[in-house]
Amino acid sequence: MAVYTHLSAEDLADLIGHYDVGELVSAKGIAEGISNSNWLIETTGKNGNGARFILTMYERRIDLDDLPFFLDLLDHLSATGAPVPRTIHDRMGASSRLLEDKAVALIEFLPGVSIDRPTPAQAYSVGRALAGLHLASEGFAERRANTLRPQDWQAIVDDAGYEAIASIDASLPDIIRSALPDLLDQWPDHLPRSIIHADLFPDNVLMLGHTVSGLIDFYFACHDITAYDLAVTHVAWCFEPGGQEFRSEVSRALIEGYESIRPLSQNERDAMPLLARGASMRFVATRVQDWLDTPADALVTRKDPVDFARRMQYYQRTGAEVFAR
Amino acid sequence: MAVYTHLSAEDLADLIGHYDVGELVSAKGIAEGISNSNWLIETTGKNGNGARFILTMYERRIDLDDLPFFLDLLDHLSATGAPVPRTIHDRMGASSRLLEDKAVALIEFLPGVSIDRPTPAQAYSVGRALAGLHLASEGFAERRANTLRPQDWQAIVDDAGYEAIASIDASLPDIIRSALPDLLDQWPDHLPRSIIHADLFPDNVLMLGHTVSGLIDFYFACHDITAYDLAVTHVAWCFEPGGQEFRSEVSRALIEGYESIRPLSQNERDAMPLLARGASMRFVATRVQDWLDTPADALVTRKDPVDFARRMQYYQRTGAEVFAR
Repeated sequence: MAVYTHLSAEDLADLIGHYDVGELVSAKGIAEGISNSNWLIETTGKNGNGARFILTMYERRIDLDDLPFFLDLLDHLSATGAPVPRTIHDRMGASSRLLEDKAVALIEFLPGVSIDRPTPAQAYSVGRALAGLHLASEGFAERRANTLRPQDWQAIVDDAGYEAIASIDASLPDIIRSALPDLLDQWPDHLPRSIIHADLFPDNVLMLGHTVSGLIDFYFACHDITAYDLAVTHVAWCFEPGGQEFRSEVSRALIEGYESIRPLSQNERDAMPLLARGASMRFVATRVQDWLDTPADALVTRKDPVDFARRMQYYQRTGAEVFAR
Repeated sequence: MAVYTHLSAEDLADLIGHYDVGELVSAKGIAEGISNSNWLIETTGKNGNGARFILTMYERRIDLDDLPFFLDLLDHLSATGAPVPRTIHDRMGASSRLLEDKAVALIEFLPGVSIDRPTPAQAYSVGRALAGLHLASEGFAERRANTLRPQDWQAIVDDAGYEAIASIDASLPDIIRSALPDLLDQWPDHLPRSIIHADLFPDNVLMLGHTVSGLIDFYFACHDITAYDLAVTHVAWCFEPGGQEFRSEVSRALIEGYESIRPLSQNERDAMPLLARGASMRFVATRVQDWLDTPADALVTRKDPVDFARRMQYYQRTGAEVFAR
């Protein structure tokens, strides 16, 4: 959470001049995004009524070849009315520009705040928004493969090594070893696919009261199993924040909200426990990687992979029960 | 530059409820201030037309006993029409509140951007704004002593030790040793005093085009020699950014702008070279302290004290010439 690059007011005013959005009025570096720098930009607006934008500079982690996919996806989804920020194109029509050898994009600002501990009503609204996103993506022809599939989780774990993983928590290696083979063997290949967000944690959702006002940070979006996105969202929303205690009312509300827009097929429902264990493992794997890559004395807070290992165990214990109609 | 404390949307909405500013619409942690956490807050506003604020949480460095002085000063100055953000008081009339054992204040948001390399026209506008601030502060009765006077620079240098200072740059000890005694001996006590900003660097000034739209970050403000504030501003604005090359047109414009509102007396003009050497030494001292306190591998950029030592030498070499009418 930082601004990695200094942009002077002169740089920013020059950049804004390439867009038909009026004159620069204010620019504040914001503490959002872990791999990009972001500024909240205010301009006089096209008609002098003022307008706000998020300026994102892509610092690392994101393959620039994927950038058109991400930005075109925002345009496609927002055009369908989904609560997704649209990309502002420059006067030449480009969705991104280069500034100091880095790609930047100007993106619509959406109101709303990210909540830490959702109410059932908020989870219901998130379920609806996620299903709406899945339906809205149907006409979008561009493709990006998921780079975090079961074989990728296995590779991350192999790369880290069980000795290092045990140094995080002594119970982790056994939990991972007992779950990964089944996930690889049983991972479904027959379920419906679509564009998925793949990282819809509460900090990637903006809320006004109980209603979703924005879905943001699409930098893991890809084409993969649609129901897996609901599983990712389930593991991210339905436990106590930073903990392991299951919140059954939030779970019910999330699934009900989703199904009010896009009912799950029987095949999808049957696969949900497996997909939820997989979603948990995906975050165990990447958090193990981040944990081992981040020095213990770094200023960045390391996210503990143990929570997600315990959430995976919860799905193992409860089986189909959580997702039963 | 960071947000040191996590505030949930729930915390923020609850906090905003104590003010008559409408409902919370958006909150973004902003990368501003080195000792406070700051959020750019948007609400529906008193009349539903939207309003923006800066929420500051005082993390360290600021003596909380001084907080009423800083916040009352903003109110006083903005009431006179100075381009200074006013403090928003809560429904009980308080200018600050406690949140998680830390003081927070809600402050008016002002448009504008901080520029890196001022034009003469911008320096002129800054000079006018600074003089306006000095005049506007006349009716303000609260007092705060300057905690960074010549004897404090000496104490900081003694505390650091010349051996450690030499580790930053081999030339620094001699430059400091040859300047400090004169500053202590000759520091004037007969010049007019007022409230001074005492830290008016370009990043504490907001500009719209060539005109100052805001003076911010008053957390060094105190009651001291008025012309010393012009000297601080001079050393902060009239050299190439991050360098030592004097910008004579910017210097002339800054002083002209200042004198268009508050002409210097002959005594003040005569003292300017000394005050400017002192202002340089003040930043040499605190940058030495910050440099030695910051690990070389910290993520924070350490500000080099050498630039200000060279700027002090420039004032030594040129004497009265820079400030001659």
